[in-house]
Amino acid sequence: MVSCEIISVGTELLLGDILDTNAQYLSRELAALGISVLHRSTVGDNPVRLAEEITAALSRSDYVILTGGLGPTADDITKEVCCSVMGFSLETDQNILADISAFFKAKNIPMPQSNAKQALVPVGGTVFHNDNGTAPGIAMEKDGKCAILLPGPPREMTAMFQSAVVPFLKKKNRGAIISHTVRTYGIGESAMAEKVSDLLENDNPTVAPYAKDGEALLRVTAFAETEDDAEKMILPVLEEINKRLGDYIYGTDVDSIQQALVNELRAKHLHVAFAESCTAGFISKRLTEVPGASEVFDCSIVSYSNEIKSKLLNVKEETLAEYGAVSEQTAREMAIGVREVSGADIAVSVTGIAGPDGTDTKPAGLAFIGIADKDSVRAIEFKTGRNDREYNRYVTASKALKTALDSAKKY
Amino acid sequence: MVSCEIISVGTELLLGDILDTNAQYLSRELAALGISVLHRSTVGDNPVRLAEEITAALSRSDYVILTGGLGPTADDITKEVCCSVMGFSLETDQNILADISAFFKAKNIPMPQSNAKQALVPVGGTVFHNDNGTAPGIAMEKDGKCAILLPGPPREMTAMFQSAVVPFLKKKNRGAIISHTVRTYGIGESAMAEKVSDLLENDNPTVAPYAKDGEALLRVTAFAETEDDAEKMILPVLEEINKRLGDYIYGTDVDSIQQALVNELRAKHLHVAFAESCTAGFISKRLTEVPGASEVFDCSIVSYSNEIKSKLLNVKEETLAEYGAVSEQTAREMAIGVREVSGADIAVSVTGIAGPDGTDTKPAGLAFIGIADKDSVRAIEFKTGRNDREYNRYVTASKALKTALDSAKKY
Repeated sequence: MVSCEIISVGTELLLGDILDTNAQYLSRELAALGISVLHRSTVGDNPVRLAEEITAALSRSDYVILTGGLGPTADDITKEVCCSVMGFSLETDQNILADISAFFKAKNIPMPQSNAKQALVPVGGTVFHNDNGTAPGIAMEKDGKCAILLPGPPREMTAMFQSAVVPFLKKKNRGAIISHTVRTYGIGESAMAEKVSDLLENDNPTVAPYAKDGEALLRVTAFAETEDDAEKMILPVLEEINKRLGDYIYGTDVDSIQQALVNELRAKHLHVAFAESCTAGFISKRLTEVPGASEVFDCSIVSYSNEIKSKLLNVKEETLAEYGAVSEQTAREMAIGVREVSGADIAVSVTGIAGPDGTDTKPAGLAFIGIADKDSVRAIEFKTGRNDREYNRYVTASKALKTALDSAKKY
Repeated sequence: MVSCEIISVGTELLLGDILDTNAQYLSRELAALGISVLHRSTVGDNPVRLAEEITAALSRSDYVILTGGLGPTADDITKEVCCSVMGFSLETDQNILADISAFFKAKNIPMPQSNAKQALVPVGGTVFHNDNGTAPGIAMEKDGKCAILLPGPPREMTAMFQSAVVPFLKKKNRGAIISHTVRTYGIGESAMAEKVSDLLENDNPTVAPYAKDGEALLRVTAFAETEDDAEKMILPVLEEINKRLGDYIYGTDVDSIQQALVNELRAKHLHVAFAESCTAGFISKRLTEVPGASEVFDCSIVSYSNEIKSKLLNVKEETLAEYGAVSEQTAREMAIGVREVSGADIAVSVTGIAGPDGTDTKPAGLAFIGIADKDSVRAIEFKTGRNDREYNRYVTASKALKTALDSAKKY
């Protein structure tokens, strides 16, 4: 099996200023490609220690992937150190230099001289274009070993890994690897795992459970000679998973609940609107992460005070006085109000206690989600059971998006 | 300065099943104790590679902190490997054995025989009691080097670190380290670094530049005998940085632009409101990440269609027809509209092209930010220069928050 090591470069990592999510992302993606990660390390912006680390990693493993240290400042040294260790010389790539100056031109900012160093690439190396920043990625191969240098910012690194590094690695390794991801909401990871515990024992296709921010997903991966063979191996496993998890599944190979919701609304030419109190725009922000959301979404009203709830959503002052802002009754009236204002087919509202401060009767994590659609107006109570403001806002927004999706499926 | 390395042990880490938050936590806590972390690594449950890693770490640094691999199962090998590398023998500690059986007794579970292995401690080592689990922590000292073994579960590790390891380390070390972070918006990392390039050469206090999501910051860190001495060393450096970066700075030792904005609005008893088109709730979501935002924020209107812009924000249909939704004129009318609806002191609006699709005259990344406050109504053009939907939405929201902050400072 092909072996790999990951080196994360940056003093800010060793100071604990940044959480290294890149190393986990790469570990998981490489495992899915059948490449085993033997060792990970983190070093600061120190040429001597970085050179020692690269030398040791190349002596142990086939691949070394480095993230970080490709920036324009003097302490960005990954490229220079890796080239000196592997015996590559650097030269300016005029195309990349043009890309970088265009990047600054588009911003009406003169290009700082230091950025020119990002256009230096190793002679005989492979260059990966950076669609999200100025630092190109680089692969250097020598004596059967390969070093891959990627930018540190996760957005730049993950996009480059998917668009350029995965194809690069697949070309070098024979066989095909296919993965499909089944996404669920409303069932915990362990409960989900129990329902498919026998499938988790499979060698090929493998079935691996992951949990993140209140969602659970299953990743099914098959290794075969061709992609068709891999797909054939995966199909029956996906069918079995669908049989067992049913309505908990909101999509397969979709990025997110909001993606599934936009797909459903577009297919049925429906519009959705939101009235948000505790989530305060988080629901509409997530829906509009999906390009084309404008076809299905016109309006969200963030009503953070009682006055705005009454003024813009026609929530009755008696309702607020009698039941409070965080109540089933208020959630219902918010949903009715925003459906009328927006003229949307489906209207979803959220009012709740994000935290950190709650009360005995209304603890942090309590929310009411209202929904008004063609059938009825109703509201459900939702409890996260945690006193974590951002977690509560995120999973409550997820629940609201799933509620809208379930409604759209009935149209 | 005392040096330290961190070794995270566990095959599940190398598979990417778990995000290693322990390493960041320890890095930050150790930096605060004046202990510099030179190197971090992650190895699987493999005795040979773990022994190599411990040997290398002890040869380079004064301390080695290992997390994970202290459990009861056969693949938990950290304690055994570390003892054999450092030449310690293991014996059963009857008190710990009693603690472990009491732990299970309290849960009415019979103690599995395998857990007895957790009561083995090195002869001559220091034992740290585990208040949240069965694996004790251990410190082994030899030839001026010290290895500290901590359990892997973050809840157990962090509690043990605070209650037992911090006192242990403070007793062994003298001196203090202090850091302050100056945050800027609107200047690139390299442009910022050029303005303070001489300061970046300092040894103590050190000045280090970081960049993230369109913001740039400087971290100033001083080492001294006492915290007071360290603060005295930092003060003139902070003053110099303030002189050079001026209005680009939105705060020192604040978490974010939204935190700085909420602080400013609270201090002056002002309210802010937003009208969001392309950011679609991202601005209000970020403002309300700050607990207490409800004191300064009532309302945001997400107007994703022209109809809603006219209906809820009174944007003139002629304006939309003549100049388009993404225009300086529309941004101005959106700001006026939401200021009237909300009664807020400061109203900020955003209309733009997030991407991926733009036009020649209105490319992705173009936005107009409108502001209506006590002085005037105006709108500014803003270009990110990128075709990255989420990046554009994030930095445009940041610009809107900074615009509101600059307005609040004039009150």
